[in-house]
Amino acid sequence: MVIPSLIQHKRDGHALNPAEWSELIRQYMAGRVPDYQMSALLMAVLWRGMSAEELAALTDAMIESGDRLSFEGFAMSRVDKHSTGGVGDKVSLLLAPMVASCGVAVPMISGRGLGHTGGTLDKLESIAGFRTGLTLAETRAQIERIGCAMLGQTPEIAPADKRLYALRDVTGTVESIPLISASIMSKKLAEGLNGLVLDVKTGSGAFLPEPARAIELAQTMIGLGQVRGCPTVALLTAMDRPLGRACGNALEVEEAIEGLRGNGPEDLMEVTYALGVEMLLLVGAARDVAEARNRLVESVTSGRALEKFAQVIEAQGGNPAVLEDPSVLPQAAEVEVFRSPTDGTVIRVEPRRIGQAIVELGGGRRTIEEGVDPSVGFVIPTKPGQRVRTGEPLASVFASDKKGIDIGLTALKEAIVIGEKGRLMPLITHRVTADGVTAL
Amino acid sequence: MVIPSLIQHKRDGHALNPAEWSELIRQYMAGRVPDYQMSALLMAVLWRGMSAEELAALTDAMIESGDRLSFEGFAMSRVDKHSTGGVGDKVSLLLAPMVASCGVAVPMISGRGLGHTGGTLDKLESIAGFRTGLTLAETRAQIERIGCAMLGQTPEIAPADKRLYALRDVTGTVESIPLISASIMSKKLAEGLNGLVLDVKTGSGAFLPEPARAIELAQTMIGLGQVRGCPTVALLTAMDRPLGRACGNALEVEEAIEGLRGNGPEDLMEVTYALGVEMLLLVGAARDVAEARNRLVESVTSGRALEKFAQVIEAQGGNPAVLEDPSVLPQAAEVEVFRSPTDGTVIRVEPRRIGQAIVELGGGRRTIEEGVDPSVGFVIPTKPGQRVRTGEPLASVFASDKKGIDIGLTALKEAIVIGEKGRLMPLITHRVTADGVTAL
Repeated sequence: MVIPSLIQHKRDGHALNPAEWSELIRQYMAGRVPDYQMSALLMAVLWRGMSAEELAALTDAMIESGDRLSFEGFAMSRVDKHSTGGVGDKVSLLLAPMVASCGVAVPMISGRGLGHTGGTLDKLESIAGFRTGLTLAETRAQIERIGCAMLGQTPEIAPADKRLYALRDVTGTVESIPLISASIMSKKLAEGLNGLVLDVKTGSGAFLPEPARAIELAQTMIGLGQVRGCPTVALLTAMDRPLGRACGNALEVEEAIEGLRGNGPEDLMEVTYALGVEMLLLVGAARDVAEARNRLVESVTSGRALEKFAQVIEAQGGNPAVLEDPSVLPQAAEVEVFRSPTDGTVIRVEPRRIGQAIVELGGGRRTIEEGVDPSVGFVIPTKPGQRVRTGEPLASVFASDKKGIDIGLTALKEAIVIGEKGRLMPLITHRVTADGVTAL
Repeated sequence: MVIPSLIQHKRDGHALNPAEWSELIRQYMAGRVPDYQMSALLMAVLWRGMSAEELAALTDAMIESGDRLSFEGFAMSRVDKHSTGGVGDKVSLLLAPMVASCGVAVPMISGRGLGHTGGTLDKLESIAGFRTGLTLAETRAQIERIGCAMLGQTPEIAPADKRLYALRDVTGTVESIPLISASIMSKKLAEGLNGLVLDVKTGSGAFLPEPARAIELAQTMIGLGQVRGCPTVALLTAMDRPLGRACGNALEVEEAIEGLRGNGPEDLMEVTYALGVEMLLLVGAARDVAEARNRLVESVTSGRALEKFAQVIEAQGGNPAVLEDPSVLPQAAEVEVFRSPTDGTVIRVEPRRIGQAIVELGGGRRTIEEGVDPSVGFVIPTKPGQRVRTGEPLASVFASDKKGIDIGLTALKEAIVIGEKGRLMPLITHRVTADGVTAL
């Protein structure tokens, strides 16, 4: 295989064949294709795109670089949810135990926060002792026992994705829909799922703000799921404001627990239920939307979802006392209220600015190696469209010191825009399946 | 400087500013920008192109990475010629001594053969003892003494180009007109020239076969010469068949010497004179085309051009006996005549096929590290358009063994296409200057 010729071929707009993709990834992982050739090829892919056949071949090759979660001899259906990332998005913390308590297994592999978006692993790790680094064998055993596991990408799953992602991150080759799709789907397809639901965020705080691009991403991933035997459905949900009220790791865990108790903010619960409905329908665990929704609501009102979360926390070494007493979560040293500087209507609550401020407060990452301070963040009950008066409390900052409080207040002043007419983007705008796109 | 952001900016179709290009090349040469970031950026440049300002900045940065040939206090004008590469293109061997013998200094820095095209350095080195590795100081001294030096790119000139070229070669990023232009012009502008003539080949054997692309390349380089004070003119010349008759290092030296004696093939002399005329006119060494051509013709008929070549060979350690007795050049062990398999008209003599066969015979390079066998190659007096009869000698193969003869005969059978109607592309099709393009 002559790598420069492959790069030229792709660069000139032609497809590489499946055997070439397979061999390329194998040689790359064996150290026989240097990073400087791979990065040039990735830029050519970003430029020229990939055919469906190429994309499937690349995804297969990335899966083949590692192990799979095997569910041989395991009768229960498995389903997972993946979000493209947002601010205040603690949906996974509610959804995994809710769906698992409905009798569908959820082997949920999540990521860490990077850039302005949070990550489920960081949130879970704000629970003292919670261990996200399960092996595939441990995951399978836990799924068999309690039907749910919440873990990070193990080194065993799609190691090629890990190397390629690190390279893309420093070579301007992240924003390619086929490459994003292959990256996500290689990990999800290795989980041995019977169905996958995608929460594709749109709006100013989303990785791909434009709905058209978000739909393209959804369709690309759905196509991949389709050809590789994992039925996939996507909802496009609003990330023009934070989801729920809490933004920041421990604060979001607290809000998720409130949600599992039936006291979650309406927008958070709405998105969680909608995604949960899709998960149950995908694996035939409910006949229709109404039944699916009822089962999910009932999992909350009955306390079974909360109980499932307790089992997961215990199984993974966390302190389940958190469920009864949120004050065992890391607490910020300083808290301060942000008050409305004026009368008017909230026009925007800019999630990207909030997410960046969490990073500045130490609650997020600039590089993947950094640790996070789980206690910091914001609680922002204010939503666009809401009328506010001067001096009215709009949000709270949680920081480790006074300097952090200043950073937080400045961010809130910039993020919360008050003017004449505010408008809230609908919470869920599109449903995308293999059959097409439905505007909701 | 955040390199991933620069790459993204270029990738998204924006220009980097001159300070960014300068810093980027500086950091790259200092080892602080890894190859995998540079190759991704180069692919983005290939995709998006470069503005004139970016191109000038990159070229400056490449020049600044090394030293320049300084002609401070030297009164004589300096002019050089650069060819984009062809088969049988021994023009430099004639042109440098011809122009130098007309009283214009020629500090000619040439390259080695790579791929199917030959290189002036390899040809010169088929003369026993000829040393092409002059330092800048040696070059300046030789120019002062005899007005001509023929050397390879010294490590002192544009080392950034050397590193970038090696990277481009293995990452599918060679075929970018701005990058090719910056590569060529960074070296030429570092020569301290008063004028530069470009021989841009077109046709099937050229690096850029399409005239439109060749003109684009010519205009890009002319623009760079213009803004950096080196008046530049280009001729587009035919590379749909080999130039002259000899193809192969020692064989071409022999033909060049014949040319300097006044016995060169018509097409070779025509291209050589046309380029020489431009060189003399650029530095005001002749008032018009007629005068310039007369001076060049006279340099041959008077023997002064041959005498100048003798001085160059002696100055650079070569054996000048070659001028009197070509048999001192390396001789191929085996020679065989190729005869026409049929009656008809020669439709094509495919230079690319001939060039590839020279590589197969050991007379060219697959990688820049390989050595070459100077004795091998072809003599092909046959030109497209010529009527031939069955059994008539069309060409000769020069090889080191019988296997080489077979390789050569096979190549000739494929390269020389005989049919009904042959057509020769005009030898010189366009003249390109800063003022525009003239079809000839």
